[in-house]
Amino acid sequence: MKKVFIHPKALVETRSIGPGTKVWAFAHVMDGAKVGSRCNVCGHCFIESGAEVGDDCIIKNGALIWDGVTLEDAVFVGPGAVFTNDPRPRSRGLPEAAPRYARREAWLVRTTVRAGASIGAAAVILPGVEIGAFAMVAAGAVVTRSVPPFGVVAGVPARPAGWVCACGSGLRFSGDRARCSACGKAYERHSGKVSFSKARRNP
Amino acid sequence: MKKVFIHPKALVETRSIGPGTKVWAFAHVMDGAKVGSRCNVCGHCFIESGAEVGDDCIIKNGALIWDGVTLEDAVFVGPGAVFTNDPRPRSRGLPEAAPRYARREAWLVRTTVRAGASIGAAAVILPGVEIGAFAMVAAGAVVTRSVPPFGVVAGVPARPAGWVCACGSGLRFSGDRARCSACGKAYERHSGKVSFSKARRNP
Amino acid sequence: MKKVFIHPKALVETRSIGPGTKVWAFAHVMDGAKVGSRCNVCGHCFIESGAEVGDDCIIKNGALIWDGVTLEDAVFVGPGAVFTNDPRPRSRGLPEAAPRYARREAWLVRTTVRAGASIGAAAVILPGVEIGAFAMVAAGAVVTRSVPPFGVVAGVPARPAGWVCACGSGLRFSGDRARCSACGKAYERHSGKVSFSKARRNP
Repeated sequence: MKKVFIHPKALVETRSIGPGTKVWAFAHVMDGAKVGSRCNVCGHCFIESGAEVGDDCIIKNGALIWDGVTLEDAVFVGPGAVFTNDPRPRSRGLPEAAPRYARREAWLVRTTVRAGASIGAAAVILPGVEIGAFAMVAAGAVVTRSVPPFGVVAGVPARPAGWVCACGSGLRFSGDRARCSACGKAYERHSGKVSFSKARRNP
Repeated sequence: MKKVFIHPKALVETRSIGPGTKVWAFAHVMDGAKVGSRCNVCGHCFIESGAEVGDDCIIKNGALIWDGVTLEDAVFVGPGAVFTNDPRPRSRGLPEAAPRYARREAWLVRTTVRAGASIGAAAVILPGVEIGAFAMVAAGAVVTRSVPPFGVVAGVPARPAGWVCACGSGLRFSGDRARCSACGKAYERHSGKVSFSKARRNP
Repeated sequence: MKKVFIHPKALVETRSIGPGTKVWAFAHVMDGAKVGSRCNVCGHCFIESGAEVGDDCIIKNGALIWDGVTLEDAVFVGPGAVFTNDPRPRSRGLPEAAPRYARREAWLVRTTVRAGASIGAAAVILPGVEIGAFAMVAAGAVVTRSVPPFGVVAGVPARPAGWVCACGSGLRFSGDRARCSACGKAYERHSGKVSFSKARRNP
């Protein structure tokens, strides 16, 4: 079984980290965080207690992942991408705000990124959204609403900007059908929702 | 008296840091920076010589705070938030730009964040602005103008997006009066400026 | 000859780093990166194998510079600025995306920043663009297209927002001529392209 690689300048406090995963210099994975197998946790990342990262994920440099954030398998998190878990943050040292921070359930709002999705560089993910399977968030986007499977979003706030194949290439629909020009996968759209085609053979 | 906690992997060079403050892994607080009491300076932060941070502030992971930036008490700075202090930066090694950098007063522009305000995740604060007391800057906003007390701003560039209670909940005005639905605090508005109500009892 | 300064908490693996350059705490310069002379590589930066940085550059704190990125001389990279080198990133652990990552040429797209240009704080540079000589990218901008020499861009996506002198001051054109009110340099514009004036004396 492959070992976990921990760079001598990384700080890994969790024991819940799968074989084949690598954690690089100046990254910090806290006690209580869960990280799957064969992940690449790049330099200067922070993964907080309570965060859950699936297998085969890439967390690029400087990304920040908090308690309440779940990344399913094979998610790409771009460099400098920032998750959040508190929609109306205040200092806990502020008397007017302190009551809200007495109970974790009162302020913590969860976020899920489904398998195969990509979060672009320096994107910001507001709490409470779901990024659908194989979706792609453009670099620099600020995501305030959920993103459907295979959806592309871009801008501040992030708006729909097309569809993307599992392989990462852009999809063009003709009616409610599309075939990826790069890898040949076929897609269909029903009631605005995109999925792999059941009618046609798929590579 | 409570001690300062400095994580073994943090780098704290200043002596001006108050009791009860904690500085976490891979954060760097330079000599000449001032940090108050009971603050939480999270991992990967940078606080430069000349920066001033009040009491009870939370500086989330990876935030960057420079010479010329003053944070009053109980300010929340979100993860990855970036301050600035030079409105037209050039490399000092560029001959055309070097004269401007000979005198600090020629390039350094100051920024103040008033007590109780919140800066959202990955927000960028242009130099020369004042963020008013209890204001809230949305995640991913780029702040180019001052924000009034209790004001909410969002977007790039940041635009007014409502009002917020000291406790962090959104405020809805009816005419020039509002009462927070979460904590009950009363507010009034005169000439467009929001303040705690003097006419009505306030919890 | 001046030595290279490497902070005891920095990690510098490359041997290709010029005299007079300083690398600060928690910065990581990988083996195979090239960094010129008299640069300032500030804290928490990351410079990847394959990146090339000229002489007299300033790389402010937390900036991320990848394989495929070339910075010419005297470039300023603002704090938290993020470059990119993959226009459609996916996890390499995703079976559908793995073939694309078998060959570096299939996914890596290069970016060049010409001499004297400035990248503002927390700006994001999409791959494949060229930032022209002495151009200035505003803080928080997301650059998706090339920027002409002396051009200013701002916003998400970044749009043209004026012209800038080599010294960093804004330029106002009267017809196709401009003179910098700060340093006196003269400029001319032909077919929309700005350059130092050949007709008039230049300081």
